[in-house]
Amino acid sequence: MKILRFKKDGKEKTGVMINGGMVEIHLPLIEASCSPFDDLERKEFYSLDEVKILPPVQPSKVVCVGLNYRDHAEELNMNLPEEPILFLKPPSTVIGHEDKIIYPHQSHQVDYEAELAVVIGREARFVSQEDAFDYIAGYTILNDITARDLQQKDGQWTRAKSFDTFCPLGPWVETELDPSNQNISLKLNNEVKQKSNTKNMIFPVDELVEYISNIMTLNPGDVIATGTPPGVGPMKVGDVVEVTVDGIGTLKNEVTVI
Amino acid sequence: MKILRFKKDGKEKTGVMINGGMVEIHLPLIEASCSPFDDLERKEFYSLDEVKILPPVQPSKVVCVGLNYRDHAEELNMNLPEEPILFLKPPSTVIGHEDKIIYPHQSHQVDYEAELAVVIGREARFVSQEDAFDYIAGYTILNDITARDLQQKDGQWTRAKSFDTFCPLGPWVETELDPSNQNISLKLNNEVKQKSNTKNMIFPVDELVEYISNIMTLNPGDVIATGTPPGVGPMKVGDVVEVTVDGIGTLKNEVTVI
Repeated sequence: MKILRFKKDGKEKTGVMINGGMVEIHLPLIEASCSPFDDLERKEFYSLDEVKILPPVQPSKVVCVGLNYRDHAEELNMNLPEEPILFLKPPSTVIGHEDKIIYPHQSHQVDYEAELAVVIGREARFVSQEDAFDYIAGYTILNDITARDLQQKDGQWTRAKSFDTFCPLGPWVETELDPSNQNISLKLNNEVKQKSNTKNMIFPVDELVEYISNIMTLNPGDVIATGTPPGVGPMKVGDVVEVTVDGIGTLKNEVTVI
Repeated sequence: MKILRFKKDGKEKTGVMINGGMVEIHLPLIEASCSPFDDLERKEFYSLDEVKILPPVQPSKVVCVGLNYRDHAEELNMNLPEEPILFLKPPSTVIGHEDKIIYPHQSHQVDYEAELAVVIGREARFVSQEDAFDYIAGYTILNDITARDLQQKDGQWTRAKSFDTFCPLGPWVETELDPSNQNISLKLNNEVKQKSNTKNMIFPVDELVEYISNIMTLNPGDVIATGTPPGVGPMKVGDVVEVTVDGIGTLKNEVTVI
């Protein structure tokens, strides 16, 4: 089931995708991910082109994992990390499908990074790897936009990852997905730039939930970005970037300036 | 004026400090920081010992500045940074005055760091240094608890700074304060460990608001932690740590284990 948030006639709503469009539901995404929908056909139907898709969740935090694909580590000639390397993107970075990525004047190299994102479904603290999936509402797609020049200059990655609009997220949350074996790819202006499979992750999703929830409490709607495969590279103003995860869909955004 | 959040009879309330206690007000802190209180004497009075003090704000993000005191840079034999180095603490780290700091099992060196904290009063984006004070609701005290061993191990500071309870904040927000000349000190078990003055900041408060708001939108209630003076060091379970900023008050917390 694909659950999304959208705007119609100025109002923010939650819906589920069905027959190429969506029907509104009267539950927040997180509860919806655990509820049956026997009466969906009696609700109002909207086609995709008559609504504005919103970011599927409004996370209190976006916890990101650094180097987490074996093939990416090989590309960079780096040893595999013993533990996940974490960083945070502030909630103010989050934008939705088809929202614009704003190229900041402080940077001269803004890169894309295709990622599978985990959406937390209920409060998670000290969760074991074997219980981890009980705390996951579903999965969506994330583009971890990074000002590469500032990342290298600062040493700490925070500024480079924290500009407004640097976290495209969506288009929706897929509640039924095997995160351990999905093709993930990225196209820049229709040309494939990244292509891998989530089976190449060094730390799989359930291990990440254990690791992170032993540091901090994860709240419903919080997002874990699971790292990017090989092929990251720069974008310029006017470029269109599309991240696809099989079983979820495609997250599309264009780069602009203010 | 000192504004705080507190709990009384199971209900969360906002109040202003007056005559050694507080009177409840019916505005959130942020609006209260801009409003007159002509009728305070007609409201209910509580003494400090009959309420539970809560963190004064519930920030959507806590943006922290690395090395920002000249005397601390000299202590570490480091060059002064050309630009502020930023990192984030997630909202899940925030605790209030007299709440317990939990020593995590993953670390063997947990340090205190006394800091002046700026509380944002209205949405701030692309704010100039000269307009910065228009966006500040007031100031409070922050203890940037840090697992020093993990900070050194990871390179990225996020894990070391992000354990639950690692951001004691409070006890209240002082709306009338000159942030450019306040004594700041820290006592561990009644012994002075840190002692400086905010005039030793490399990047003053108004410059930080300009710098950060040119990267990300700051929302009402968001917090900027302005860096720590010399003398940081480790704590152990059972220790009591007190941070004092003249003109605000004292933030006190004890270290415990789960």
